[in-house]
Amino acid sequence: MNLPATIDAIRALTSALPAGNDEAAAEAARRQAVLTKPAGSLGRLEELAVFLARWQGRAVPGLDRVEVLVFAGSHGVAARGVSAYPSEVTAQMVANFAAGGAAINQLARQANAALKVIPLSVETPTADFTRAPAMSEAEFVQAVAAGMAAVGEEAQLVCLGEMGIGNTTAAAALAAALYGGDGAGWVGRGTGVDDAGLARKAAAVDAALALHGAALADPLEALRRVGGRELAAIFGAALAARLRKVPVLLDGFVASAAAAPLRGLDGDGLAHALAGHVSAEAGHRRLLRHMGLDPILDLGMRLGEASGACLAVNVLRSALACHGGMATFAQAGVSEG
Amino acid sequence: MNLPATIDAIRALTSALPAGNDEAAAEAARRQAVLTKPAGSLGRLEELAVFLARWQGRAVPGLDRVEVLVFAGSHGVAARGVSAYPSEVTAQMVANFAAGGAAINQLARQANAALKVIPLSVETPTADFTRAPAMSEAEFVQAVAAGMAAVGEEAQLVCLGEMGIGNTTAAAALAAALYGGDGAGWVGRGTGVDDAGLARKAAAVDAALALHGAALADPLEALRRVGGRELAAIFGAALAARLRKVPVLLDGFVASAAAAPLRGLDGDGLAHALAGHVSAEAGHRRLLRHMGLDPILDLGMRLGEASGACLAVNVLRSALACHGGMATFAQAGVSEG
Repeated sequence: MNLPATIDAIRALTSALPAGNDEAAAEAARRQAVLTKPAGSLGRLEELAVFLARWQGRAVPGLDRVEVLVFAGSHGVAARGVSAYPSEVTAQMVANFAAGGAAINQLARQANAALKVIPLSVETPTADFTRAPAMSEAEFVQAVAAGMAAVGEEAQLVCLGEMGIGNTTAAAALAAALYGGDGAGWVGRGTGVDDAGLARKAAAVDAALALHGAALADPLEALRRVGGRELAAIFGAALAARLRKVPVLLDGFVASAAAAPLRGLDGDGLAHALAGHVSAEAGHRRLLRHMGLDPILDLGMRLGEASGACLAVNVLRSALACHGGMATFAQAGVSEG
Repeated sequence: MNLPATIDAIRALTSALPAGNDEAAAEAARRQAVLTKPAGSLGRLEELAVFLARWQGRAVPGLDRVEVLVFAGSHGVAARGVSAYPSEVTAQMVANFAAGGAAINQLARQANAALKVIPLSVETPTADFTRAPAMSEAEFVQAVAAGMAAVGEEAQLVCLGEMGIGNTTAAAALAAALYGGDGAGWVGRGTGVDDAGLARKAAAVDAALALHGAALADPLEALRRVGGRELAAIFGAALAARLRKVPVLLDGFVASAAAAPLRGLDGDGLAHALAGHVSAEAGHRRLLRHMGLDPILDLGMRLGEASGACLAVNVLRSALACHGGMATFAQAGVSEG
């Protein structure tokens, strides 16, 4: 895949997104109708099998090669006291990922998925977006390209997640830029800030909205100005997956917000994406409603790291186990209703 | 385990249920607090790890030996046109389970769980409970004992599910007997009945409530009179698991209703049980509220066969993977918030 070198090149890629394979989806739906179960009785599992068929382009899809991509970045806005944790935790957690000690290491193994952690200039925070755009155009394009490059050639499904102290504030600003509303309506407690921290988060979002103003009307500019490197990379990964027709599982509030500009640029731009879960972060349910995504899981999680997406992989595997392995009424000699 | 030979013997077993291990639960909670994640950020996964610790009696529980028990029975009430499928489908599906072609075969394999199917006199339907008690006392005790005997000595977790054409009507009658309300308030479309079938289900429940009257005030009598063999067996399996302090995952509407009498006999009687999911069957969410159970999954499933419980096994495995495998803040050199 040729990686874009300019914002215009990114924009050009988003203007010609491929559609899914309707024939494969229809064939998968016909298969579901003859399996030994009452029609529709596997609920969401049936829809997920058809979804995967559409985006993998085959009636009996597979999940032998699942990738979990965790992008990490540092945020200038973190200096404004928007997190319960100090900024250095981002780099410390990247080291924890490498050592295998984080939640996502265990969850990826449990889901039989390959974990890739991609730190993005973690030692260099983005600019404080309450004062200036978070990223220069060059920094932004580089981060998007890094996300695009991270999607493996052979991936059958990609889980997108992140690590970055301060990034729920960036996600709230991005959600407000895309869907309206103020800081108080989008911020949440993130890693666990107190009431004063929550007020600082809302104030930071409001300051960013005031500073960047009309420039935020363009989804790519919104992502560059109030996002962060890991958010830009998630956008890039979601874009690259779509260009290759690879289905995507989004993780929580930050990953959802990061991918949302793709839907802002093309109303059908996230048709290849599922929300792995709805997190406990305050704005996530509202954001998913705006994005037209119905989360697979609702387990009160709010960790990030692709953890919620990774749990949903197991649901997809179960869906495909039934889809691929069940007998038909005719094969099993079971009477139909 | 000595199996009961009379209803009084069953009742005696339910009067001395063991409690969970609070120390193991407390130690598990202390462990959760030092793992490299913001406190509480794994949400339900943290609660599930502590729950399993309490019932397995060790701070770091395991799920190497998970059993999926599917009990099958035939129902006299099926002759009243309460299902979209003919009665013979119960035996046909038992054969499909044996041949490996049903949904639960695929889901159990996917969850790395051992599947046991226990047919209970499938060739002999229970009595039509709108006319007489579904089971004689001897039949009832035998079914409960069969359920108790099915729980393996070494099981670390048991999923309880069922197959039985007509059994959502039995479950609705049992729910009404235990928690009040009429047929229309508890019946649903089951395998997919039309409006006329739904009305026949409600009428059957109302007829049963009128016939059995005050006798239904006793939870065991309610289970015997309007339940079915597979429901009695699920009750027995839930009881046996509790006596051995083995945690239980309940499947859908029928399995939940079948276990509910244990809570009717002892308000804490289902403390060792989780609702694997909330099904699409109309009465399930209401029933779980009455039972004080918060379902792990909500995927619009309504198949039975322990399918929803089996999907939840993966969530429990993910919870334990994090609980057992994550580094502590001290081990990883990560700053605490």
